[in-house]
Amino acid sequence: MNEPSSQYRFDILQRRWVIVASERGKRPQDFVIQRDEVESAFCPFCPGHEDKTPPEITAIRESHTRPNGPGWKVRVVPNKFPALRVEGHPEKEAEGIYDRMHGIGAHEVIVETPDHKSRMADRSVDDIALNLRVYRDRLADLTRDQRLRYVLIFKNSGAAAGASLSHPHSQIIATTVTPQTVALELNACHEHYQVKERCLICDVTKQEIASRDRLVSVDDRFIAFCPYASRFPFEVFIAPRFHQHDFARASDQDLRGLAAVLRDVLSRYRDALDDPPYNFIIHSTPNANVHPRRAHYLETVEFDFHWHLELFPRLLKIAGFEWGSGFYINPTPPEDAAKYLRNL
Amino acid sequence: MNEPSSQYRFDILQRRWVIVASERGKRPQDFVIQRDEVESAFCPFCPGHEDKTPPEITAIRESHTRPNGPGWKVRVVPNKFPALRVEGHPEKEAEGIYDRMHGIGAHEVIVETPDHKSRMADRSVDDIALNLRVYRDRLADLTRDQRLRYVLIFKNSGAAAGASLSHPHSQIIATTVTPQTVALELNACHEHYQVKERCLICDVTKQEIASRDRLVSVDDRFIAFCPYASRFPFEVFIAPRFHQHDFARASDQDLRGLAAVLRDVLSRYRDALDDPPYNFIIHSTPNANVHPRRAHYLETVEFDFHWHLELFPRLLKIAGFEWGSGFYINPTPPEDAAKYLRNL
Repeated sequence: MNEPSSQYRFDILQRRWVIVASERGKRPQDFVIQRDEVESAFCPFCPGHEDKTPPEITAIRESHTRPNGPGWKVRVVPNKFPALRVEGHPEKEAEGIYDRMHGIGAHEVIVETPDHKSRMADRSVDDIALNLRVYRDRLADLTRDQRLRYVLIFKNSGAAAGASLSHPHSQIIATTVTPQTVALELNACHEHYQVKERCLICDVTKQEIASRDRLVSVDDRFIAFCPYASRFPFEVFIAPRFHQHDFARASDQDLRGLAAVLRDVLSRYRDALDDPPYNFIIHSTPNANVHPRRAHYLETVEFDFHWHLELFPRLLKIAGFEWGSGFYINPTPPEDAAKYLRNL
Repeated sequence: MNEPSSQYRFDILQRRWVIVASERGKRPQDFVIQRDEVESAFCPFCPGHEDKTPPEITAIRESHTRPNGPGWKVRVVPNKFPALRVEGHPEKEAEGIYDRMHGIGAHEVIVETPDHKSRMADRSVDDIALNLRVYRDRLADLTRDQRLRYVLIFKNSGAAAGASLSHPHSQIIATTVTPQTVALELNACHEHYQVKERCLICDVTKQEIASRDRLVSVDDRFIAFCPYASRFPFEVFIAPRFHQHDFARASDQDLRGLAAVLRDVLSRYRDALDDPPYNFIIHSTPNANVHPRRAHYLETVEFDFHWHLELFPRLLKIAGFEWGSGFYINPTPPEDAAKYLRNL
């Protein structure tokens, strides 16, 4: 068995893990080339090219079609250049005052549709719901692996948002540590619950519905609004109005509701912002199967946390101030952004 | 007096302040235009155009030249479109479950040289040292304002790094809150000191000198190395080898030493990475004049913290995974990056 080639390394000042993926190791020349990106003519995600990806993990297929051939509607494959690998054990180690462990995890790609040119905003609600069901089922499956503490589902759309291939796809990265951003949210939610015995995100959604100033879209099951402290212009937060901590517990009907509001927001982005590059991320609860204090954890997190989807167009260049401070300067008040999006 | 038009807003989930700069308020159309950036032919930072910036705060000038006219070597002006304003009081307020305060602070631009086309890597050590002395003196001056808790000095070089004008310049943003990134570092340093009675950053620099694997450049006063948990390929951390917590206390001689190592690293970037866009940020101690527990703070922070400069070329597009997780995937191990830079 090969030694896993990437490492998690602990940033001793920021108290954050970084993945150093040495197998992808790049020489300076590679970066010089990367700056002038050109889309290649050949798409490994298009039907008929199934042999150009690693063998599929799962797919939603027409009946009587075979794995790794055409006939699929959604296809999940391992990332061909994974940042993390499933094989092996973390093997936590010190290196002087530093800390590291092997790069254990999962890195999967969800090819959302056979249609190379389609954008999520233009697809049907049923079609998007199908993608969301695949997200949910992969999350549920990956959390059976007790080594994996967190499963992050995200989408990069457009080169400026970090997509290296234009065929519509999402990604899943499962890690042996809970990401810092999620840990901060869990903490805030936990402390709010400890004092108030209410879910912080339920409180936030109620205030947003009461004030209406930042609402983009709302129905009886889901809400989309521009967050009060939006980091980015036109950032949107989508959450169920009912309390649910774990995205893996969303029913097919829940996911159809999410698909409808997600499609609505994405089509508002397309129309207001000229089809911008964007990212979205799903924040769900960490994997309860691996938490070291499992009993205590399950006791509280079901009431504490509330899954949600964070969505933002990539309109501004992020500069030194943001990277060096964790601060953000947002030139568009969320009230203005919501009004534009709402009134389309 | 005008009401300050920007606000600090507290992100209730991430526990981080965001600056919402409503005066810069942008409509969707503005973003559509911004994506195809073109440098304007007219440069407001060039000699002879001094009336195109707000009146200068300070400048280093040839003798017998007058403020706001030519004859300067370095010129500091208020940002024409400031994210924060000096006038007024924070006026902390709740808005339901949210928190906000007025956008009080300072936002200054340091025009580094009259020479529009020069790059920092190509300038002389004396010239760079002159910039660093201006940074230091502005930091010392701004910390006299007891409302300002933190002064962040940074540089964006190149459009991809967030520079909106190509004339060489740096920026200073002073805020009424300590940025989250700095607070995390202060915390890590403080806890290390509490247990070990040693400075964490002194310990790190010593280990880097002992191992040599990640060293880029070192002399008897300064060290430049690729950090163990580098977020970005070719990230570099520059620190004095002697313990000093506050950048405002650096002597002219210290700053000449810093200028030499900074110039050395920037010229290695230029040669190895084809003159990449980059950012650097100086992390110094917060303003001791305003800390609510001033006595306790001064007691410890002089030994705890250690100013440094964080420097990184902007080679990769930052995607949804990074924004949504606080994680970073670095394809170039810092040992490889340091070796490339060192061996030039």
